[in-house]
Amino acid sequence: MDTEMRQQPDVLAALADRFPALTAEVARLAASLGGSGGGPGGGPLGVAFLARGSSDHAALLGRYAVELQTGLPTCLVAPSVTTAYHRAPAGFRGWLLVALSQSGRTPEIVDLARRYTAAGAAVVAVTNDGDSDLARAAALTVALDAGPERAVPATKTVTAQMLAVLAVASGLGGTDGLTHAQAATLPSAVAELLADSEGPAAAAELVARHDRLAVVGRGACYPAALESALKLQETTGLMAHGFSTADFRHGPIAVCGPDAPAVLLAGSGPADADTLDVRSALAGRGAPTVLAGTASDALLPWPALGHLGECLTATVRGQQLALATSRALSIDPDQPAGLNKVTMTS
Amino acid sequence: MDTEMRQQPDVLAALADRFPALTAEVARLAASLGGSGGGPGGGPLGVAFLARGSSDHAALLGRYAVELQTGLPTCLVAPSVTTAYHRAPAGFRGWLLVALSQSGRTPEIVDLARRYTAAGAAVVAVTNDGDSDLARAAALTVALDAGPERAVPATKTVTAQMLAVLAVASGLGGTDGLTHAQAATLPSAVAELLADSEGPAAAAELVARHDRLAVVGRGACYPAALESALKLQETTGLMAHGFSTADFRHGPIAVCGPDAPAVLLAGSGPADADTLDVRSALAGRGAPTVLAGTASDALLPWPALGHLGECLTATVRGQQLALATSRALSIDPDQPAGLNKVTMTS
Repeated sequence: MDTEMRQQPDVLAALADRFPALTAEVARLAASLGGSGGGPGGGPLGVAFLARGSSDHAALLGRYAVELQTGLPTCLVAPSVTTAYHRAPAGFRGWLLVALSQSGRTPEIVDLARRYTAAGAAVVAVTNDGDSDLARAAALTVALDAGPERAVPATKTVTAQMLAVLAVASGLGGTDGLTHAQAATLPSAVAELLADSEGPAAAAELVARHDRLAVVGRGACYPAALESALKLQETTGLMAHGFSTADFRHGPIAVCGPDAPAVLLAGSGPADADTLDVRSALAGRGAPTVLAGTASDALLPWPALGHLGECLTATVRGQQLALATSRALSIDPDQPAGLNKVTMTS
Repeated sequence: MDTEMRQQPDVLAALADRFPALTAEVARLAASLGGSGGGPGGGPLGVAFLARGSSDHAALLGRYAVELQTGLPTCLVAPSVTTAYHRAPAGFRGWLLVALSQSGRTPEIVDLARRYTAAGAAVVAVTNDGDSDLARAAALTVALDAGPERAVPATKTVTAQMLAVLAVASGLGGTDGLTHAQAATLPSAVAELLADSEGPAAAAELVARHDRLAVVGRGACYPAALESALKLQETTGLMAHGFSTADFRHGPIAVCGPDAPAVLLAGSGPADADTLDVRSALAGRGAPTVLAGTASDALLPWPALGHLGECLTATVRGQQLALATSRALSIDPDQPAGLNKVTMTS
């Protein structure tokens, strides 16, 4: 896990180099949808994301970015609707479907990509293997080229997927998407975070004293909160629960207290101030808090890079926390009990 | 909370009586969308759901039912895209937008209903108050008529919202939707569950010995798992985490063990067998398990009613577990610390 985490700057740098080419390819595909009943200006009528597990968090970021940039209908589709209930998708003519699968071999995702193509969607595959079944089933493939991922907790493929979906979103136009210049700052920013071992060790020392915690974020930090909670679950067995700040403060905050800390992920976006605001309520409950983000007093800082790209820095901070906490608990993060890599769910 | 839970059979019976009228009204509205660029057969091009908190779980059920029945693009829209980022929705001409708000007064939901109307959507309001701002902003209102809800943990309005969204889904046609006959069986089924105090007490006795647990379900039981986890969080402060079975077994199952039990919700649908399958992996981890559902050995049984309606029975079982666990812990479920009822989130 540690080795693969440290490959992230190189993987992201290669993707950032291809950012202009990727957005241009997506823009061309999107424009072609105009000919078959597409949206105003020749773009898609809507954008759907198809994923599971860690890839689902990249899909959530993609949905968020597309909705934010274009205002268009933007969906996460439920794989089980087709796989378990055999309902064929309908009415996706003029839509873009972004299918995410690390291996490109998850059979249900490959099968679904074909079914959505049959229903009229143009499929963009986001996968580590540009020569996989999923890539062959797609109209356009964004190959992550992250190299083999052997650790059970996915790390470099997740941040690569996140950058890839932001490139797809930017290719669709609209406003306030991630720019090439912003993408180009990510590799060095991530490298700097990875060089910091003190912050994660201090945060892990706090987290490892408890058996449960909340991970809270909003906007682009919300998918990172879910992903960080999943990494903590997989590597440490702690009951880590990711929450949207908007939901958390109206009820679930009741789970936090002296024995149940909160990790707050708060970047530089317009929704992030909300997450900082939760600190006083957490303090009132006596809950220890780890702050990660762009605030000057963050234990796990990251630089302000534009809020969409900060989903990646927040995710890297979550990876570091999971790895450091597993070490503090003397658990091998690469060999969590009872897990395997390629998922098959009917 | 207890009083309002016990009003559910009456609330659901009144809604079930109106089920044919509601589905007919939705069908008429859906057919009218055909004139403004609607889908094949005059129905909507897609269906979006707008909600927060507990209402979000009813929205998730609605999304699932609509996707399952029609295969159409079906979205949960993110309120913050508009409220925090000021992005106006676009391209919703021919869409149905289902807006859920218990009070009908949540300002952001009312404002968003107006914005989606401006973007071309026909808005269906699902609200307890047929005379509320949200109802006035909508093309069609499904009034829950559940009476005032005073307890902080929402119960009767949640199951009423669930039945309402299933009526909306049935009004859209497709296949395998909840039928009037199935809806009519729900009130007495729920009354029977509420008469069972032994099962919830036994389950609570187990859960209350721990400070964290997983609540796991798939298909229509997945929204119920999220809702049950939220009720447990609000009423007991336990770190209850809802999971989709499909995700849970490929990683997060690591959080369960001798000190962290799992509650499994498994009904009679095609995806539910998966949830029963998780039992052996949980047993292998030494995790205590509470089974709720249609299996003959369930500690918290419910009758097979058709899988969509079983989201309601599963939700009632979760309410009972939350209430009984709060009692076992000597916590007043109606006065959890630091929560209030009407949510305002910018």
